[in-house]
Amino acid sequence: MPKRHVINAQVGPKGTLDTLSQLEVQQLSEAGSGRMYRLFRQCALAILNTGAHIDNAKTILDAYKDFEVRIHQQDRGVRLELINAPADAFVDGEMIASTREMLFSALRDIVYTENELKSRRFDLESSEGITDYVFHLLRNARTLRAGVEPKIVVCWGGHSISTEEYKYTKKVGHELGLRQLDVCTGCGPGVMKGPMKGATIGHAKQRTHGGRYLGLTEPGIIAAEAPNPIVNELVILPDIEKRLEAFVRVGHGIIIFPGGVGTAEEFLYLLGILMHPDNRELPFPLVLSGPKSAAAYFEQLNAFVGATLGEAAQARYKIIIDDPAAVAIEMAEGLKAVKQFRRERNDAFHFNWLLKIDERFQHPFEPTHEAMASLDLRRELPPHELAANLRRAFSGIVAGNVKDKGIRLIEEHGPYEIHGEAAVMQPLDALLQAFVRQHRMKLPGGAAYVPCYRVVQSIAEELAS
Amino acid sequence: MPKRHVINAQVGPKGTLDTLSQLEVQQLSEAGSGRMYRLFRQCALAILNTGAHIDNAKTILDAYKDFEVRIHQQDRGVRLELINAPADAFVDGEMIASTREMLFSALRDIVYTENELKSRRFDLESSEGITDYVFHLLRNARTLRAGVEPKIVVCWGGHSISTEEYKYTKKVGHELGLRQLDVCTGCGPGVMKGPMKGATIGHAKQRTHGGRYLGLTEPGIIAAEAPNPIVNELVILPDIEKRLEAFVRVGHGIIIFPGGVGTAEEFLYLLGILMHPDNRELPFPLVLSGPKSAAAYFEQLNAFVGATLGEAAQARYKIIIDDPAAVAIEMAEGLKAVKQFRRERNDAFHFNWLLKIDERFQHPFEPTHEAMASLDLRRELPPHELAANLRRAFSGIVAGNVKDKGIRLIEEHGPYEIHGEAAVMQPLDALLQAFVRQHRMKLPGGAAYVPCYRVVQSIAEELAS
Amino acid sequence: MPKRHVINAQVGPKGTLDTLSQLEVQQLSEAGSGRMYRLFRQCALAILNTGAHIDNAKTILDAYKDFEVRIHQQDRGVRLELINAPADAFVDGEMIASTREMLFSALRDIVYTENELKSRRFDLESSEGITDYVFHLLRNARTLRAGVEPKIVVCWGGHSISTEEYKYTKKVGHELGLRQLDVCTGCGPGVMKGPMKGATIGHAKQRTHGGRYLGLTEPGIIAAEAPNPIVNELVILPDIEKRLEAFVRVGHGIIIFPGGVGTAEEFLYLLGILMHPDNRELPFPLVLSGPKSAAAYFEQLNAFVGATLGEAAQARYKIIIDDPAAVAIEMAEGLKAVKQFRRERNDAFHFNWLLKIDERFQHPFEPTHEAMASLDLRRELPPHELAANLRRAFSGIVAGNVKDKGIRLIEEHGPYEIHGEAAVMQPLDALLQAFVRQHRMKLPGGAAYVPCYRVVQSIAEELAS
Amino acid sequence: MPKRHVINAQVGPKGTLDTLSQLEVQQLSEAGSGRMYRLFRQCALAILNTGAHIDNAKTILDAYKDFEVRIHQQDRGVRLELINAPADAFVDGEMIASTREMLFSALRDIVYTENELKSRRFDLESSEGITDYVFHLLRNARTLRAGVEPKIVVCWGGHSISTEEYKYTKKVGHELGLRQLDVCTGCGPGVMKGPMKGATIGHAKQRTHGGRYLGLTEPGIIAAEAPNPIVNELVILPDIEKRLEAFVRVGHGIIIFPGGVGTAEEFLYLLGILMHPDNRELPFPLVLSGPKSAAAYFEQLNAFVGATLGEAAQARYKIIIDDPAAVAIEMAEGLKAVKQFRRERNDAFHFNWLLKIDERFQHPFEPTHEAMASLDLRRELPPHELAANLRRAFSGIVAGNVKDKGIRLIEEHGPYEIHGEAAVMQPLDALLQAFVRQHRMKLPGGAAYVPCYRVVQSIAEELAS
Repeated sequence: MPKRHVINAQVGPKGTLDTLSQLEVQQLSEAGSGRMYRLFRQCALAILNTGAHIDNAKTILDAYKDFEVRIHQQDRGVRLELINAPADAFVDGEMIASTREMLFSALRDIVYTENELKSRRFDLESSEGITDYVFHLLRNARTLRAGVEPKIVVCWGGHSISTEEYKYTKKVGHELGLRQLDVCTGCGPGVMKGPMKGATIGHAKQRTHGGRYLGLTEPGIIAAEAPNPIVNELVILPDIEKRLEAFVRVGHGIIIFPGGVGTAEEFLYLLGILMHPDNRELPFPLVLSGPKSAAAYFEQLNAFVGATLGEAAQARYKIIIDDPAAVAIEMAEGLKAVKQFRRERNDAFHFNWLLKIDERFQHPFEPTHEAMASLDLRRELPPHELAANLRRAFSGIVAGNVKDKGIRLIEEHGPYEIHGEAAVMQPLDALLQAFVRQHRMKLPGGAAYVPCYRVVQSIAEELAS
Repeated sequence: MPKRHVINAQVGPKGTLDTLSQLEVQQLSEAGSGRMYRLFRQCALAILNTGAHIDNAKTILDAYKDFEVRIHQQDRGVRLELINAPADAFVDGEMIASTREMLFSALRDIVYTENELKSRRFDLESSEGITDYVFHLLRNARTLRAGVEPKIVVCWGGHSISTEEYKYTKKVGHELGLRQLDVCTGCGPGVMKGPMKGATIGHAKQRTHGGRYLGLTEPGIIAAEAPNPIVNELVILPDIEKRLEAFVRVGHGIIIFPGGVGTAEEFLYLLGILMHPDNRELPFPLVLSGPKSAAAYFEQLNAFVGATLGEAAQARYKIIIDDPAAVAIEMAEGLKAVKQFRRERNDAFHFNWLLKIDERFQHPFEPTHEAMASLDLRRELPPHELAANLRRAFSGIVAGNVKDKGIRLIEEHGPYEIHGEAAVMQPLDALLQAFVRQHRMKLPGGAAYVPCYRVVQSIAEELAS
Repeated sequence: MPKRHVINAQVGPKGTLDTLSQLEVQQLSEAGSGRMYRLFRQCALAILNTGAHIDNAKTILDAYKDFEVRIHQQDRGVRLELINAPADAFVDGEMIASTREMLFSALRDIVYTENELKSRRFDLESSEGITDYVFHLLRNARTLRAGVEPKIVVCWGGHSISTEEYKYTKKVGHELGLRQLDVCTGCGPGVMKGPMKGATIGHAKQRTHGGRYLGLTEPGIIAAEAPNPIVNELVILPDIEKRLEAFVRVGHGIIIFPGGVGTAEEFLYLLGILMHPDNRELPFPLVLSGPKSAAAYFEQLNAFVGATLGEAAQARYKIIIDDPAAVAIEMAEGLKAVKQFRRERNDAFHFNWLLKIDERFQHPFEPTHEAMASLDLRRELPPHELAANLRRAFSGIVAGNVKDKGIRLIEEHGPYEIHGEAAVMQPLDALLQAFVRQHRMKLPGGAAYVPCYRVVQSIAEELAS
Repeated sequence: MPKRHVINAQVGPKGTLDTLSQLEVQQLSEAGSGRMYRLFRQCALAILNTGAHIDNAKTILDAYKDFEVRIHQQDRGVRLELINAPADAFVDGEMIASTREMLFSALRDIVYTENELKSRRFDLESSEGITDYVFHLLRNARTLRAGVEPKIVVCWGGHSISTEEYKYTKKVGHELGLRQLDVCTGCGPGVMKGPMKGATIGHAKQRTHGGRYLGLTEPGIIAAEAPNPIVNELVILPDIEKRLEAFVRVGHGIIIFPGGVGTAEEFLYLLGILMHPDNRELPFPLVLSGPKSAAAYFEQLNAFVGATLGEAAQARYKIIIDDPAAVAIEMAEGLKAVKQFRRERNDAFHFNWLLKIDERFQHPFEPTHEAMASLDLRRELPPHELAANLRRAFSGIVAGNVKDKGIRLIEEHGPYEIHGEAAVMQPLDALLQAFVRQHRMKLPGGAAYVPCYRVVQSIAEELAS
């Protein structure tokens, strides 16, 4: 591996960290050690590599083994001292402004999370408590802006997609920007970047100042998907579930681009919420879109939803193939309905309080073999419950594919066994096999895909058949 | 009493109250009842009477007995419903913007105080805890602005002064404004208003946008001294001691205009702090000023300080008579030293962390007859301790003169007896008598002044004499 | 006369003078000599005395005989060098920002006038040409702002009024400001200042930023009525007629406060225009207002209009006595009609193109004895023509009272003789005598008033009677 | 040719056209006919095709034969009515903001040019008059901003370059943007677009708001090189010479990327100016840069300059190959010298008054066969004169290659004959042949290149040899 250029530097605070109490500064400087330090160092390194899209988390960590970040307490605030930092984050010895901003965003969110957890101010066992926590973290990050009309469009999809699909996401972003809509993504490359890039040009053409490119991430993801440089608001949520909740509460509509099992998981998460009886009336524009080459992907997904969750679920989204302007028009129309609805119900524009999120969607799912095997996957379940369980199944497969812990479990115990009745299991199997055929089951090393799961029909049915 | 015009109206939130969590809204609406409600109603009424300078607290409360304020919870936030509100706060049926702003400032601070006290986040027993609490309350009110150069000049003095003195404070304010300095006062009439009014014109002449007119008050004071309409930032501190601490931590220099015992108390408070050995090096511009007619007042005060606290205390301030420009120039010079000092010591510009405030100045003094009688008033005490005790003596006299509780105590037990050695007691007596002669001992009803105290030399000295 | 403090200083350009061509700089520096220099020096001196309200033109000029202003050419622009300038215009050696702004406004307008007259770009003989010229001068001064809703209220009245009347104008200004209306006046003291001062407070209360205090003056007036310091846009029109045209084209409504013959002249000017058949449909809110003590003044004026121009003329204005809020409400209502009308007719909000101004109102009237004697003052004239002639009569009396040239003419030839039929002459005589009784015929020295005119009935009538 | 989508629409004015006098509106609406109309229609069509980079001028004009633009006079201003306009310029029926802006920029400049020429205000025969005219046109377009530090970097080069070269210009733009420099180009595709696109990203990363992307064009060019959508200030100069003068007076430094004969012409133009004895001291950063593949191009160019104009000419520029950051650093350093120099000489930052431009560079060169044949191309000429003549030679070749008139002349009379002494002619011949080899002699149709010139040594030399 070639020697990377490194640099030592000191940078001063920005934004919400500029007026701190002495106590807060002290707490911050404690972030210079222990668990919190490791977390911050990892996020900082990812941010300093922003734009260097060729790297993955491990490569980065290996490449900058000597990297250190020290937090210095000063009466006037904090200063970060960076040692052996990637030189690309600097121009003529000075840190790029957006990098500096993101660095302090990370510090802000990590410290906030840490402090609030310690203070036990939020009841993280209850659904309301979790929502409240997500709200406060977003507000602390100044993400919530009162009175602004609904125009945040969340874009989901794979971070590793084909060039054709990437270009398509740029075009959709361009059309969103031309209609003065903002973009929120997971803030990494691929689908996380394309729509933002397109929207930047669209906003420039419309002379729209203050366009927002909101990136929501979490510590486990940021290193693998370093924030792209267009992101101008970065928020680090403490875990996947809170990040997903942030997406659906802060976004006013969602576009799903092609992706893999992870994208399917997000899609099921959202469908599960929208199918909840309490959300029946609530408008939430949801568009699935991609270029012509992605048509098969969405057909498969749609067929799967039809077969398992039924037509009511299919009615909650619209599939648009190869028509960026139509996507943006559909979204803009949907946002009008959102605005109208929130106005009528007196709900905030900046946070979707009225959206009911079942507790099952708020708690992490631990994909042990036992948990995977005991998922209840029957058609007669209420659709939002079936959706919740399907989402867990996908979540387990993602873990088995790419996450350290999941991979180890598979190595030890063999593939997960997913049980369920045929009416659910067969469409699931078909979908997953289609993903494999379409090369959407990406593995870290790029090796040929060996499934980490086995779809089995429920024993009762097998007996009966 | 003539019938006042009243109006019913609903007003929406502003500023920090515009993005609230559901829980916070619920807590707010609880402010619609109990102790917090009475507090808020009283502040609200004072604010709605802003500018109607003829009223005092009691008159206002009596005049609007039917006034009610209801807090409505809504998903999007809070709304205030006002019933039988003073019509002067409205123009063509719509509430004046500054009144609305102050109304929500009051709500903000009262709720913050209430919640934080409940949460026990701050250790209000320790000196650091109290300072931290004052800091957080000011930051929550968005009073602390990072990076802005020191230019907040606190003006203290009486709220009921002669026309000549009032005009003089306007002139000084005008000179401050011409030098682009901001003004912070107790936010009521008299000395609280004159400098702000003058500064407004000075700022306009210098095309200074964003001039700050900061009013710091507390619930017991706001009703008697309704905020003047020029105040564009209002903060309600929970009690007198925290308000005084806010003044000296947020202000960069202080001008003392003529006043009565209350002003003397504030002066002693400040001197006591500045005389603390830890503050010896710390620059803190302090000017005493008034028109020619006030020369005697300041001579008396100066003589008293010389006789009791000595020359070192006199060295901490400068007396300037009848020269508004000189006052502003002196202050501007002093602020440069403050800036230099904070830079060198890495202290924040927006909060005077380095100022040592002894715990004795942070805790309320309860002026019982016993407490007053046992004040230790001897010249051999360290000056900052003697100053602390003198300040308590003045505080007791203010209470005995104008505060409900104090007046009742005097009615029951007769005048306070203040003991001390002659070297302190004689100057004190001379000063208080001068105040009476100069009609600076104002009583609520305007009656002739009957002293609520009796200055007695210490028994030991009496025996010895 | 006491020695005035003076100061030497250099100041740099501002606003439209900041990007000049080399040729323009050269032309400007030529303003350092000849007729243009004398004009600029006089205006500059008046501006540097802004706020020093005790002075009149002659006193100022005498007090600062050594004052000089030099214009230095530099490649980057111009610099003014001031020698022996009034020290009051400076704070700690630096010129007050508003003074500097006005200084360059004067230079801008004087040079523009001079250059455009030389360039013969405008046909100042034709009505359209004069209007075009007024437009260009205002646009060059950046007074015309596209798209802003009609809210400029012109206030006319005397510059030397009673304290009661002055306070009343402040109250009206306050009510205008509370309704977020802007104020335009002749920019001197008295009625020129009161409404601006009141509006400033009103705007502050409503947190209205960017309130406009527009002062329109002309070289002959500025010295006698130095701009008050609240004016934040100063425009110097070349003569009285163009200044009057600027008022009625740029203002959206007019309030007339008490004044003397000069105010009557302005009132007749406006009535004459509004009575023009072409303006019949055109809304132009016009309110006459003053405190109770001014009721007689307006009654007299109203009676005079009724007797000479008739009821149709009276229908164009409303008299409101002692009710500042009612004045502001009436004006706000009227402005809505103006907005509606301009929208329907596609007229600009920022310049009243549709207002027909007869050429007679655009050309200066030279009040020789002959011209005064031959004014045609008969009831059967079309009202707008009679109004034009009456306005000239008043104009002559103003000249005979206070203007150098007029005073000399009267000294030489005795009082003007004004002829006309009794139906016009008797009301005129009554009005003028009322002005004398009410001490509204102010003379420079303050001497008792000796009329400069004699009202005589037309010879034919006299013979007939 | 496929049918293009068209749309009819009305759009309102923007910027300097929002406050017009009635006379000006009338003049504008006259632009709806005659020569001015044809000019405006052509520019408008090019602008409406902004971003549709596949079209050339002729294709566009042919594709939208039915396109019409009508100027409607309204009291409030002008409105444009567009008939059969390209649908791509609209989003959901509304014109894209930047397109609307550029449309009115074109109208503004065309009308200004027309009016000022008519008014004969400028002496377009004299050098000073021409410079003054360029200044006024730029000021009218609000391009000149007082007090802003020198940071406008002009980028010159071909509009039709290789992908590699295009990507390189983006990288250089990115580095310029990271250093907060602005970009000015000829506003079309290729080198006109790449640096702007890169700078946009660089500015975004540095959170630089208000980055300027200045496009200077002229009517003959805009159709062929429709402004790219990033341009946020568009100015249409009346002819090539004034456009070139605008570049060198408004730009603070220049980067030359690879191009063809046109680029060589611009290079010679600039060298000719910089070699003028009056400009000897004047700093003007000039960098020639391209990717590795362009090294040969710059070597050739450099050799040609060395052979003809000598080392002193070579000292005025720096060649940097394949190092975008180095280019930006060199430029940033150079701009510091420019700032220092202008400050010392009191020259404006916004217009390079001190740059001496010889009249020969200000007047158009008419490339007849006779004029080309009589160009004086001898080494003993003063370098700035030789440069002027060489520039004319290149200008003629450009005309003969691609301009209507030039092509027709060549068809009639055969190739131009360029005479001169061998010391000049041989390097010239070598350079031109290198251009042909490198495929930098682009022809409209893409045909193989047949030279439109013949380089011949001067007769005297031929005889002597």
